[in-house]
Amino acid sequence: MSAVEAKNKLSSLKEDPGNDVKLKIYALFKQATHGPCDTPKPGMLDFINKAKWDSWKSLGSMTQEEARQRYCDLIGSLVAAEGGAAAQAPARSSAGGRTYDSLLVSTQDDITTIVLNRPAKKNAITTQMYEEIIEALQHAARDHSVVTVFTGAGDFYCSGNDLSNFTKIPEGGAEQMAKAGGELLRRYVKAFIDFPKPLVAVVNGPAVGISVTVMGMFDLVYATESATFHTPFSQLGQSPEGCSSYTFPRIMGLGKANEMLLFNKKLTAFQACQLGLVTEVFPDSSFHAEVWSRLKNYAKLPPNSLALSKQLIRSVEKERLHAVNDAEVDRLIERWMSDECFNAVMSFFQAKAKL
Amino acid sequence: MSAVEAKNKLSSLKEDPGNDVKLKIYALFKQATHGPCDTPKPGMLDFINKAKWDSWKSLGSMTQEEARQRYCDLIGSLVAAEGGAAAQAPARSSAGGRTYDSLLVSTQDDITTIVLNRPAKKNAITTQMYEEIIEALQHAARDHSVVTVFTGAGDFYCSGNDLSNFTKIPEGGAEQMAKAGGELLRRYVKAFIDFPKPLVAVVNGPAVGISVTVMGMFDLVYATESATFHTPFSQLGQSPEGCSSYTFPRIMGLGKANEMLLFNKKLTAFQACQLGLVTEVFPDSSFHAEVWSRLKNYAKLPPNSLALSKQLIRSVEKERLHAVNDAEVDRLIERWMSDECFNAVMSFFQAKAKL
Amino acid sequence: MSAVEAKNKLSSLKEDPGNDVKLKIYALFKQATHGPCDTPKPGMLDFINKAKWDSWKSLGSMTQEEARQRYCDLIGSLVAAEGGAAAQAPARSSAGGRTYDSLLVSTQDDITTIVLNRPAKKNAITTQMYEEIIEALQHAARDHSVVTVFTGAGDFYCSGNDLSNFTKIPEGGAEQMAKAGGELLRRYVKAFIDFPKPLVAVVNGPAVGISVTVMGMFDLVYATESATFHTPFSQLGQSPEGCSSYTFPRIMGLGKANEMLLFNKKLTAFQACQLGLVTEVFPDSSFHAEVWSRLKNYAKLPPNSLALSKQLIRSVEKERLHAVNDAEVDRLIERWMSDECFNAVMSFFQAKAKL
Repeated sequence: MSAVEAKNKLSSLKEDPGNDVKLKIYALFKQATHGPCDTPKPGMLDFINKAKWDSWKSLGSMTQEEARQRYCDLIGSLVAAEGGAAAQAPARSSAGGRTYDSLLVSTQDDITTIVLNRPAKKNAITTQMYEEIIEALQHAARDHSVVTVFTGAGDFYCSGNDLSNFTKIPEGGAEQMAKAGGELLRRYVKAFIDFPKPLVAVVNGPAVGISVTVMGMFDLVYATESATFHTPFSQLGQSPEGCSSYTFPRIMGLGKANEMLLFNKKLTAFQACQLGLVTEVFPDSSFHAEVWSRLKNYAKLPPNSLALSKQLIRSVEKERLHAVNDAEVDRLIERWMSDECFNAVMSFFQAKAKL
Repeated sequence: MSAVEAKNKLSSLKEDPGNDVKLKIYALFKQATHGPCDTPKPGMLDFINKAKWDSWKSLGSMTQEEARQRYCDLIGSLVAAEGGAAAQAPARSSAGGRTYDSLLVSTQDDITTIVLNRPAKKNAITTQMYEEIIEALQHAARDHSVVTVFTGAGDFYCSGNDLSNFTKIPEGGAEQMAKAGGELLRRYVKAFIDFPKPLVAVVNGPAVGISVTVMGMFDLVYATESATFHTPFSQLGQSPEGCSSYTFPRIMGLGKANEMLLFNKKLTAFQACQLGLVTEVFPDSSFHAEVWSRLKNYAKLPPNSLALSKQLIRSVEKERLHAVNDAEVDRLIERWMSDECFNAVMSFFQAKAKL
Repeated sequence: MSAVEAKNKLSSLKEDPGNDVKLKIYALFKQATHGPCDTPKPGMLDFINKAKWDSWKSLGSMTQEEARQRYCDLIGSLVAAEGGAAAQAPARSSAGGRTYDSLLVSTQDDITTIVLNRPAKKNAITTQMYEEIIEALQHAARDHSVVTVFTGAGDFYCSGNDLSNFTKIPEGGAEQMAKAGGELLRRYVKAFIDFPKPLVAVVNGPAVGISVTVMGMFDLVYATESATFHTPFSQLGQSPEGCSSYTFPRIMGLGKANEMLLFNKKLTAFQACQLGLVTEVFPDSSFHAEVWSRLKNYAKLPPNSLALSKQLIRSVEKERLHAVNDAEVDRLIERWMSDECFNAVMSFFQAKAKL
């Protein structure tokens, strides 16, 4: 488990792990980021700092690398003990004979709809869901539908990457995990680049991270007015994906793209529409009625003409999008293995996990 | 004559061709799209359906390909009988010793103005006009004017491609006609890509199809407030041209471009301006006065500086624009020969030509 | 000294050079642009035109090339007599041990700020300043700051290229000067293309010419509401630089870009923001407080994540930006040596220097 995952797992813990564990977390954090304890011992009456100092000191000359690994393992075991994402009893859905654990996929009125179906987790995307979405897109590409729709169950569109994904730490450790995560990401984004039919995002609520960054490759993005758009990468020492490093500056200009991608600015649906990330905003009350009535009409148009026109438009950018995807994934793998990312993530939650 | 042309010709017929002809049209349509008649004979008292069934049945085992060809020939002959576009007595205009049948071309105040001059046909562009516009652009590129203006006579800017163009069906049939049409389109769009001076669209009214799609290559687009912008391709089983598959997503973002190019959305002048397709909108009442006063001032600027600056800006995109033009034309040729396009066109007008 | 510089120098003269000198300027202008005097002698009572004619006639068969050179020399000597830019006693600033004559450079709160510091000359950029800015950017790229800011001292952001730069005319004359100016420009723009950290323009007042054209490469552009944006190239027979021939059409669409780059339109801060050239506009009264508070927060984010994300975004465009810079510089060198540019510049100020 990487530091990023550790952070997310810790954030997602429902129960307080108790002071002993927190002291251990603190100690490993200090050892991993500063090395062996070298500060003066706090006074006898400064109980909390004394306890923290003792815990750090107890790690002796443990290497930073080992501290980091133990830190991640500790967080991982806490999450595992709670049962994590796997504890859910997911709804099951089948389309074309295929059954999905985390998606609802159906075809009606010549429209194939892919619904992210983890509403209790704000539709955060697990490793399994990445794979299922790739599969669902590949299936929709070949079925007889005219238009494909992407949306979320419940109040959220998607809260982005669910880092409780990687519960089994591979033997290769952080590096192998970063590379495996990178490869999955690469294939996921590729599925959007190569999708051969009109693809529509029906953004029913807040959208975060990778659910936002791939939007530049949707052919239409319809949003309900209470939807929001947020890509907080730099805060956690990471970097943009989903081809957003290319599509966002194209869509909204370099400055506005940087406010989102570098400086963590969250947009309302109306702001996102004004900047071109969203095609049209609808009132919450009539969102579904208006959007679906429109999509049904679109799906009646000649299917080959739509698909071939979409492919024609995409073809101009396709080679570049693949190159951008590769560059983004490479940078992100490197980020995931960096001290800065590790420290940013730990500092972020350490501020929240104070004794 | 292709199916698309057949449709347009039928729409443009001023006189009802009579029931016998309509029955023949119906029969050929069914034979071309469904094959030989295989439905039960309607009852004796169902006069209309009986007549239609009889007509269809009478075609026996005629192949779908032959039915399609005869269908096109029939429509073509009807149009030819009416005299078609050729019956017009066009105004004639000369510029630099060159006389045009369908354009008014003149040079004044260092501005060469090309006026589409078929107001009775909403300035729809015939084959002859394509050739004349190419020639007029080539001439303007070499003359001593500083700025070139493109506009329409009467209330329309341009209603797009006039498919009554191809009155002589070549021996090669639909395929040869599609290829010839494609080559003409390729050369037409090329003339805009390569034009070496500032080129201004003065959009005096509704603009449709190819008159809209090439706008992304104009250096300025000034529109009167009642102008509209419409590119209904998918409705007739076709695909975008004029480099719009590249320029429109660049100008207005992918979603807004798709609403126009894939989903047939018509824009007002203000909408088109907000999206960047139009540079500025003027009140109808003062449109010509304001625009021409401005253009006259522009034309006083150092000509080489303007031309070389325009070429500098274009040079970054030129190679790509040529590649996009080629890809669009290839796709369109394929579309024109497709069953989907043929059927979309026939279904479209068949709904209008009911007995 | 080139014609462009001559024009600027003349404009910047504080004292009237007197009628004799003005007649000499007139005569050299006519000789340079029309050749030897070949018009009829004005009547005895037409004193002014008679004096002008006499002065022109007195140049006899001097070649146009020589007249041009003398014309430039004359203007140059007038400016030199006034002391020109060199007469200023510049503030001096040091950063990292480096002292700048024309800039204030400092680092605080992890932000390196580069201030153009010639407020009396509206922060026009001299040759020396180009070199110092290149150096300051290279230094900021390597220092420990997280964000780099570019701004101007006083009420102006920057009035663009100060053509009183080239006071020593090289032996190679106009051609060598044009080439040297081109190389300096190429290196200057390159420093912006290659800058590896977030770069922010804090536009505190009017911005002109090259200070505007490079803005497409800033990661954020914050402007006070009274700032303006102006790139008057064609008026003086020149052409766009700073990669604006590529970035401006991308940012604001071809038509709006042409209004600025070809047709000299000046934008307000709000217009520039609406078109995407400016990221956000602030009230004059709270501009500095709001901008710096925001930038200080940005500078607290993980530095590598910011820099690497910025580089990721830039990498997609980098090769193209270098090619565009080269093409723009080549065209501008050619422009600077052209008769049109020379004549445009001379006509421009000749209208102002009437007897």
